[in-house]
Amino acid sequence: MSDTNALDALIQALRRLPGVGVKSAQRMAFHLLQHDRPGAQLLAQALHEASAHVHHCERCHTFTEAQVCATCEDVRRDRSQLCVVETPADQSAMERTGAYKGLYFVLMGKLSPLDGVGPNDLGLKKLFERACDGVVQEVILATNFTAEGEATAYVIAEGLKTRGLRPTRLARGVPVGSELEYVDLGTIAHALVDRR
Amino acid sequence: MSDTNALDALIQALRRLPGVGVKSAQRMAFHLLQHDRPGAQLLAQALHEASAHVHHCERCHTFTEAQVCATCEDVRRDRSQLCVVETPADQSAMERTGAYKGLYFVLMGKLSPLDGVGPNDLGLKKLFERACDGVVQEVILATNFTAEGEATAYVIAEGLKTRGLRPTRLARGVPVGSELEYVDLGTIAHALVDRR
Ligand SMILES: [Zn+2]
Ligand SMILES: [Zn+2]
Repeated sequence: MSDTNALDALIQALRRLPGVGVKSAQRMAFHLLQHDRPGAQLLAQALHEASAHVHHCERCHTFTEAQVCATCEDVRRDRSQLCVVETPADQSAMERTGAYKGLYFVLMGKLSPLDGVGPNDLGLKKLFERACDGVVQEVILATNFTAEGEATAYVIAEGLKTRGLRPTRLARGVPVGSELEYVDLGTIAHALVDRR
Repeated sequence: MSDTNALDALIQALRRLPGVGVKSAQRMAFHLLQHDRPGAQLLAQALHEASAHVHHCERCHTFTEAQVCATCEDVRRDRSQLCVVETPADQSAMERTGAYKGLYFVLMGKLSPLDGVGPNDLGLKKLFERACDGVVQEVILATNFTAEGEATAYVIAEGLKTRGLRPTRLARGVPVGSELEYVDLGTIAHALVDRR
């Protein structure tokens, strides 16, 4: 982009962000240096702070600055239910429904053999221990309805069954507010199978 | 996303990047904290360094860490030609052609009245002084062929003409390697008008 090493280093560093190619990285660097230097300082500071202080809840694995996260600490939550989600964003979506009052186990990923993510990387051993602690009565598998999310749910379900537990899975079906005409056929077929 | 202030602050800071909405910012924060903490540190450091050391060349306005950039200092460049571009990325594109050996004036933007960017913000006064320094023989307007880029070129051309200079503009025309069938009609019409 020019003869400055600091600028080239910034463009290279921005490219490590997911979904950011060389053009986007150039545009971001240009924007920050030309129009938003306070934003650059703010982002640098936020990266330092988050790297230093954010780690994983020792009970549910989600991001937290404490040893145990606020959700796990919340005495009003129903400790007999454990919902397994892939990411904090998925957990956040579940929370926004207001329909779930139990606890979580956040995998912080999904099984992905091609990317080298196996059961050990997801801490499934810890999940199985937790599920068998005598407090948890129901494990709800809320991994995504993608190929990898389904495979992850399958592996967890098998592991729980060998331990005598029978997990539940979020229902597949037609999204609320959709017209059947515009819903993909696989979804309609699943909604038919899972009809109540 | 969770109960951590440091994480929320990081997501907010990432949203200041152009083209990054809340979902992208969440994905970026998750990626950095879960999979690439060295990348987070690298980016923080690069932002600090660039903010501290990158400023504008006092001759051409492009980004540089020196007082005058390497291009302006290069004695092999033809000082009689001055090419006006919008951004360092545009300058870089011109350089990659290998077809231009003159100097540059980088506007670091374009006229955009709706965004409050007027002639003073682009340093046009400095451009006009430079164009009239007796060394520059030809000013080549290489702003983009967008509505704002064309307006910018027009305003600069008018300013130069009142000073007795007659700038040139990059030719509009059919991109090399294109089939006419797939080129938009405005481009073909311009290529016809600008035929040689
Ligand atoms: Zn927790
Ligand atoms: Zn320069």
